[in-house]
Amino acid sequence: MKILIINSGSSSIKYQLMVMPTNEVICTGMIDRIGLETSNVTFKTAVDTIDEIIPIDSHKTGLQKVAEMLLDPEKGVIKSTSEIQAVGHRVVHGGSYFSDTTIITEEVKDKIKELSELAPLHNPAHLVGINVAEEIFSGAKQVAVFDTAFHQTIPVEAHKYAIPNFLLTEHKVRVYGFHGTSHKYVSEKAINFLEKHSKIITIHLGNGCSMTAVKDGKSIDTTMGFSPANGLIMGTRAGDIDQSVIFYMVKNLGYTAEEVNSILLKQSGMLGLTGYSDLRDIESKAQEGNKDCELALLMNAYRIRKTIGAYAAALNGLDAIVFTAGIGENSSFMRNLICTDMDFFGIEIDKEKNQIRSKEIREINTANSTVKVLVAPTDEEYEIANQVYLLLQN
Amino acid sequence: MKILIINSGSSSIKYQLMVMPTNEVICTGMIDRIGLETSNVTFKTAVDTIDEIIPIDSHKTGLQKVAEMLLDPEKGVIKSTSEIQAVGHRVVHGGSYFSDTTIITEEVKDKIKELSELAPLHNPAHLVGINVAEEIFSGAKQVAVFDTAFHQTIPVEAHKYAIPNFLLTEHKVRVYGFHGTSHKYVSEKAINFLEKHSKIITIHLGNGCSMTAVKDGKSIDTTMGFSPANGLIMGTRAGDIDQSVIFYMVKNLGYTAEEVNSILLKQSGMLGLTGYSDLRDIESKAQEGNKDCELALLMNAYRIRKTIGAYAAALNGLDAIVFTAGIGENSSFMRNLICTDMDFFGIEIDKEKNQIRSKEIREINTANSTVKVLVAPTDEEYEIANQVYLLLQN
Repeated sequence: MKILIINSGSSSIKYQLMVMPTNEVICTGMIDRIGLETSNVTFKTAVDTIDEIIPIDSHKTGLQKVAEMLLDPEKGVIKSTSEIQAVGHRVVHGGSYFSDTTIITEEVKDKIKELSELAPLHNPAHLVGINVAEEIFSGAKQVAVFDTAFHQTIPVEAHKYAIPNFLLTEHKVRVYGFHGTSHKYVSEKAINFLEKHSKIITIHLGNGCSMTAVKDGKSIDTTMGFSPANGLIMGTRAGDIDQSVIFYMVKNLGYTAEEVNSILLKQSGMLGLTGYSDLRDIESKAQEGNKDCELALLMNAYRIRKTIGAYAAALNGLDAIVFTAGIGENSSFMRNLICTDMDFFGIEIDKEKNQIRSKEIREINTANSTVKVLVAPTDEEYEIANQVYLLLQN
Repeated sequence: MKILIINSGSSSIKYQLMVMPTNEVICTGMIDRIGLETSNVTFKTAVDTIDEIIPIDSHKTGLQKVAEMLLDPEKGVIKSTSEIQAVGHRVVHGGSYFSDTTIITEEVKDKIKELSELAPLHNPAHLVGINVAEEIFSGAKQVAVFDTAFHQTIPVEAHKYAIPNFLLTEHKVRVYGFHGTSHKYVSEKAINFLEKHSKIITIHLGNGCSMTAVKDGKSIDTTMGFSPANGLIMGTRAGDIDQSVIFYMVKNLGYTAEEVNSILLKQSGMLGLTGYSDLRDIESKAQEGNKDCELALLMNAYRIRKTIGAYAAALNGLDAIVFTAGIGENSSFMRNLICTDMDFFGIEIDKEKNQIRSKEIREINTANSTVKVLVAPTDEEYEIANQVYLLLQN
């Protein structure tokens, strides 16, 4: 079964064409920095590569570009779109409607649209992806894999907010958690690597950032809550903030609630603190002595360190922390900053091992470190393909 | 110097008449449950006690009752209000205007009023207290002691939010922290008890609740931020919540921002979860099998445990945790719940020692516990009197 996996993020599309159940990857690629003049478009097969920097103005243009490359007479991998039997879509917010992988119908699309209010940076991008995929791959089953599913095991004392009960019972206001596909995948990788069911904290640091406490393979707490807005500091999202700041901005500074929401989602985080949203830019500016960039990196690492401590309490123990996703896998600088002054927890990073790059899960702690510090490349695409395959077999 | 200390809380007035610098307490008392039919009014001298349950409808009525008892021909302690040379007022929010204890002028009152928007449950109550005290004790110096002062040492990576910089530079949006007088007092008590400068977490659990990480006697982080709304779960306040819940309630449920603010401050926390706001009621209902009450206590303890972990990371170590204030000093049940399954941190409570009641600072951990677990009665009144005295000597 040929399955195309589409992962439309807030400013990127990652895609992969796989054959299941053999796990063969036919081609893979991504388009990032959507909306900028310098979008990076990649397409990679066993024998060929396309790597371009061109402007991609929207998710729709991006997906059309992906189809064009798949069908390319020279470098392409399919002759007709009908060869693709299923398209697996990553969908961020499944609300309380979806606790499992689901075949997409008009009703499912309506629910995903309705849930856009809870994930305004993501669900609309997914819907565009689904609609374009339905046109281009009209013979394929369209399947949604929800980021919220892995976190359904979070116990009530961790998923409930201290607000009037009717907001949960009537309006489903609770912690949902996100990046579930990634946290599930890397925690399973870590359990295999450690060869035991363990107390693990997975640290997903990409354009969006979240952490999950994983006990015996199950999510028991996570930093993102009702929407992907809170928790850690992200590229443009503020993460946790005293809610009174919102009321102050509305009452005293004259903003509407919607304007404040937009500021907290799109103009905050690393961008609000430094003027840059890409961590690679911020790291290099900090090294050149930019004080705002230095401080933003410190703030970011400080909040992650505090969450490691909080989840060590939730787990009453800690066997491993696992870094993953763009920043987690690639920024030795951030990993080092996060693991500094954490010897109380038994975390000690090996500065040389921290520099090694690899596509495999690897250990970067010292021999003395009682907590394993792992770097595990995430593979949300494989995880999605596997779930799509299992669903369509049933 | 006779100093009357007035501590007007969200639903209570605590007061104390002291002679400084001898620390002699002439009388002490409180009025709690203001607004209910069953307000508890107490007045206590070395020889006499008044203890009544009467309705007290407002802070103004409450302070008039205090003055009446002070002047009582039989049980009173002063013949004329002119004997009182200074009134020290606890004031919750000093914003960025006040980093020290300050003599109250019309300008200071204007600032406290202006700051009511940041502390709507407290600053208005303080202003009523100040205005009534100016009338009744017209010959006394009126002095404000701010809850925010102790937290001015919190470093920038912990006091800054990840929002656009102009909100800090132009509008002073940052973590201020509260209950500073209490955290300062009990952390100093703990340092004396431990006989060393240590890594300490102070846990103030009253009607309002907050925790502070104290390193070498200085606050380095605290759970309340820009206002006393966030952090731990409180009597009627939600504490931390994903900010997207607010935008969802405004956009999808038709509330105004102001209504949401009111719900989060006055109808949330333990009240929203259980229908009760007084922890004593909730504990007894939980023991009778009330599931909402059981869950609310679990949620409350879980959030405190996570914060202990977070601050152990901020401190990179932990010598002692210190329980204080109404619930912290009196609820052996909550202390036990919080210290359960915390052996990873070296926290182990002695269940028998936990039951002992005392007015002195005491240790309730086992001999094996590497972290000291202390119960330290707070004395914000002494701390305020001392600061007022020191200010007026200069």
